[in-house]
Amino acid sequence: MTQRDQLYEGKAKKVFLTDDPELLIVHYKDDATAFNGLKKGQIAGKGVINNKMSNRLMMLLEKEGIPTHFVREINDRDTIVKKVSIVPLEVIIRNIAAGSFSKRYGVAEGVVFDSPTIEFSYKNDELGDPLINDYHALALKIASEADIAQIKKYAFLVNEKLKAFWKECGVTLVDFKLEFGKTSDGTIVLADEISPDTCRLWDSKTGEKLDKDRFRRDLGGVEEAYEEIMKRLSAHI
Amino acid sequence: MTQRDQLYEGKAKKVFLTDDPELLIVHYKDDATAFNGLKKGQIAGKGVINNKMSNRLMMLLEKEGIPTHFVREINDRDTIVKKVSIVPLEVIIRNIAAGSFSKRYGVAEGVVFDSPTIEFSYKNDELGDPLINDYHALALKIASEADIAQIKKYAFLVNEKLKAFWKECGVTLVDFKLEFGKTSDGTIVLADEISPDTCRLWDSKTGEKLDKDRFRRDLGGVEEAYEEIMKRLSAHI
Repeated sequence: MTQRDQLYEGKAKKVFLTDDPELLIVHYKDDATAFNGLKKGQIAGKGVINNKMSNRLMMLLEKEGIPTHFVREINDRDTIVKKVSIVPLEVIIRNIAAGSFSKRYGVAEGVVFDSPTIEFSYKNDELGDPLINDYHALALKIASEADIAQIKKYAFLVNEKLKAFWKECGVTLVDFKLEFGKTSDGTIVLADEISPDTCRLWDSKTGEKLDKDRFRRDLGGVEEAYEEIMKRLSAHI
Repeated sequence: MTQRDQLYEGKAKKVFLTDDPELLIVHYKDDATAFNGLKKGQIAGKGVINNKMSNRLMMLLEKEGIPTHFVREINDRDTIVKKVSIVPLEVIIRNIAAGSFSKRYGVAEGVVFDSPTIEFSYKNDELGDPLINDYHALALKIASEADIAQIKKYAFLVNEKLKAFWKECGVTLVDFKLEFGKTSDGTIVLADEISPDTCRLWDSKTGEKLDKDRFRRDLGGVEEAYEEIMKRLSAHI
């Protein structure tokens, strides 16, 4: 398979066309952004870690019956994925209050919920990815009722499986963001990535943050956190 | 029944205790505020109109099987209502895109939805009444699953009945905000008010705004709009 023109450059990834119209190549960069692009920087080695971590977790989820866009890892930073049309909803699952949730509702970070919550943000940089609910998404024809139901079902299942996996690694899955896409035949699959860029991951014993919050909040030890979380994952899959 | 101490003064109403622990007296003021209290003013005669309009609409809804806090109108500005514990969720139903919805999602005002939408805001002035979904409300123990289901059911029914009523008056019900409360025996009832302060009401033919947006947006003819909408209502109930 041959890499063709760049289709798109995002904040943390580049996406390339290939000679197969159903497949794309994703290239993971070390670039890091936060606060809707207002803060910019680099995390050395992040691209390699996020590529490998995301691929391993997607393989794990495939085994659990959740279809993903993952096809094959080519090298440290590049992966072949199915070409999908992204559903413009960021899907956020939360097990514990943190980040924007804590700020929005005035709740201390660390409050554990009885049940996980799900929320959607409308993927739109100009509007600042506003929170949106099922009724709004339907009214704006962003997704169908069936698609929303399927996405919710998968998202909660992803949470169940990832929470259990990270627990084995001594890591608490606080919250995470998923994106879903539709393949050419209309199948909903998990897309984008699963990494310390898109998940809050806390050491189960110390509560130490092992994710992008170290970059967002200038906590230091950013690279070390990414390396530590990758080491923990690698010991289990 | 005797009026006792003032319990609370809100932006547009005062609430008084009575010698009956289950009943309160609501007094409607002419004060108007917008943008979470940043804009302040007076709309002459608004208190009288909102009191009478809200009472007549609540009576109409009671007949349609929706329990409300309304008990009895005492005079032009004062009404006896059941004492309830307010569920701290503002319930917003939208039939047509307008206001904060249009701004939040970049949608032109006037876009008609295939089906009405419902959304909740967490009633909290300090936090700016943030949008909140069912899962969040449950996680924060703001309301139970059963209460939320009941509130949604009532809110959509209110929309159906009010939309039909206003249509008879030559008025389009664009969107509105409801609040619900729990009586001492745990029954969910419609509370607060239904008025041009809490509803967007457009003339069905001309699209002219007959509601608080005339005040919010400095469109002029504010008192006249309140009088016109009351005249239309009075011709039908």
